[in-house]
Amino acid sequence: MTGATLYVCTTCKAGEPVPEGAPRPGSRLHAALLAAGAPEGVRIVAVECLSACDNGCTVSLSKPGAWSYVYGRLALDDVPAILEGARRYAATADGIVPWRDRPTVFRKQSIARIPPLEPNS
Amino acid sequence: MTGATLYVCTTCKAGEPVPEGAPRPGSRLHAALLAAGAPEGVRIVAVECLSACDNGCTVSLSKPGAWSYVYGRLALDDVPAILEGARRYAATADGIVPWRDRPTVFRKQSIARIPPLEPNS
Repeated sequence: MTGATLYVCTTCKAGEPVPEGAPRPGSRLHAALLAAGAPEGVRIVAVECLSACDNGCTVSLSKPGAWSYVYGRLALDDVPAILEGARRYAATADGIVPWRDRPTVFRKQSIARIPPLEPNS
Repeated sequence: MTGATLYVCTTCKAGEPVPEGAPRPGSRLHAALLAAGAPEGVRIVAVECLSACDNGCTVSLSKPGAWSYVYGRLALDDVPAILEGARRYAATADGIVPWRDRPTVFRKQSIARIPPLEPNS
């Protein structure tokens, strides 16, 4: 099984005014996810801007041959659910976690998903 | 250069009531894109649900080793711009078209983007 990547947008402002020099909400979410620890089969990677600024904080989940997902409107309280959702995603072959097994935050705050690239593409 | 895939959500309702048995706005957008013809290096592929239902009609652009993009709130009038944007995307190595070269609809109606999978993932 090939590993999944949890990209975390570190530039997200989550609609808040951010004082000059203060860490942005996206950066704080990334730090909290790293501190909590990546589940088996998941890498946590910082990225600057997932172009979903109206829905920050945002993360994406992707892995080879699988559907990719983008989730938004996330906060520090969502860290355990994000990591559990990422763990379940990583354990699938195609990226599709059965609906009932998805954390609530993944059910309700999906922004988009993208199909896997076809082998002949 | 490896080809790009333009996925078109055929289940999008674009916030409209759709009479039973009538083609959905997403399905009509897919048909119009096919009828206009895919640019060189681009495949147009129908997909059921990109999980961006609040922002339909939606399409995504992806190709190996490149950033993927999701665009929303699209209509039949946007067909030429979508195809031109797809052509320019396909012509890049990393999926990043310079801002000034993006069709207006791609500048203003981006829903999200996802980084390429890293080679060691």
